[in-house]
Amino acid sequence: MIDIILVNPQMGENIGAAARAMANFGLKNLILINPRDGWPNKAAEANSVGAFEHLNDIKVFETLKEAIAPYQVIFATTARPRDMRKKVFTPQKAIENILKENARTAVIFGGERAGLSNDDIARAHHIITFPTNENFSSLNLAQSVLLICAEYARQNLETDEQTLPTGKSELVSTEELNKFFDRLDAELEKGQFFRNQDMKPTMMNNIRSLFTRAYLTDQEVKTLHGIVSSLISNKTN
Amino acid sequence: MIDIILVNPQMGENIGAAARAMANFGLKNLILINPRDGWPNKAAEANSVGAFEHLNDIKVFETLKEAIAPYQVIFATTARPRDMRKKVFTPQKAIENILKENARTAVIFGGERAGLSNDDIARAHHIITFPTNENFSSLNLAQSVLLICAEYARQNLETDEQTLPTGKSELVSTEELNKFFDRLDAELEKGQFFRNQDMKPTMMNNIRSLFTRAYLTDQEVKTLHGIVSSLISNKTN
Repeated sequence: MIDIILVNPQMGENIGAAARAMANFGLKNLILINPRDGWPNKAAEANSVGAFEHLNDIKVFETLKEAIAPYQVIFATTARPRDMRKKVFTPQKAIENILKENARTAVIFGGERAGLSNDDIARAHHIITFPTNENFSSLNLAQSVLLICAEYARQNLETDEQTLPTGKSELVSTEELNKFFDRLDAELEKGQFFRNQDMKPTMMNNIRSLFTRAYLTDQEVKTLHGIVSSLISNKTN
Repeated sequence: MIDIILVNPQMGENIGAAARAMANFGLKNLILINPRDGWPNKAAEANSVGAFEHLNDIKVFETLKEAIAPYQVIFATTARPRDMRKKVFTPQKAIENILKENARTAVIFGGERAGLSNDDIARAHHIITFPTNENFSSLNLAQSVLLICAEYARQNLETDEQTLPTGKSELVSTEELNKFFDRLDAELEKGQFFRNQDMKPTMMNNIRSLFTRAYLTDQEVKTLHGIVSSLISNKTN
């Protein structure tokens, strides 16, 4: 488990959004260092959509130093690596490391305006930097917390096998597939397949769904057209 | 590369935040279906903090159907699996799949209030569900887009996999499925579908394969029987 520390957060809305991100992904402990608008905070409550009920009691400290006392490993998040000799991790590598070490770990995030100070970062063991676009790097506080929480949850999940359809032929485009559905729809109308017109949308959804999920190729859709042509040419007994 | 489609988005702020998430992680194409407040939108611009300059021109369509015509694979994002038989992926598994298949792929997101309709979802090949806390699942539109974009970027740097089973209905037995194939075979013979009898085994294998891979339920096989009955009752022109 990792705990989240927000250092000098300004807007209650962002504290609420951070809590929401944490609750979504099962994190429990949120610590606030010197929140600008005090605590508790109505804007935080409103923007959390109930997330605080899923967290342990929020702890508030005056200084980062006091807050991190019980932790063994601290990761500091920064938009860009600072001029300090620390290991810089992507979120993925950081969480891998955290799960491997199994130490009491906190991830700290700076306030909206200035991020973490050099003093704050100096207290951290490691740095996490988000691998954003070089030309557009603009994650806000709550987005950064969300990405850390989601990555933590992702790596805590078991992974699994998966089956893939077919060999080499080109997957059909949605447009071609829709032409087939339109034709099938028209032919089924002629054949009075939809005895109850109210049910037609649901039935067409089901039909659409079963064919879509098959990941049809161009060739297979041609085959299906051929099947329809063949069937409608049959004489009724 | 994946493209992002927002279906009936309501608040410009969320469109802006989605664009911001995309630009952070290098995605380029955003498509809007019937945005409530029209397009362009000032609130979107303001909340994007300049992200639109890093995207290609935004395309706006009236319907999802038109928008997805050029794509080969569609993933629909939903908070919870619907009662439709499609593969459900975590974001991680979805992106793995997308990178492996290298098809023209769009990920669609529903509007703030209601999410995607069943009609929208029926048009998708697969579902993406975020593995959030069972007791607190509350990702907003922009957060969901952010998680997809970040996961895409993460796997573009390096890789790693999950499929979950969906819906409740019973998979059809091989016996029932074979009865369907036998009937189809007989009807196709009557309709002179197999012009070249030497090719018949291969063609039947292809047909068998496309239906088998869809993992059909009992109910769906009944539907397919209904389709065949309906089609063969149609008059030939």
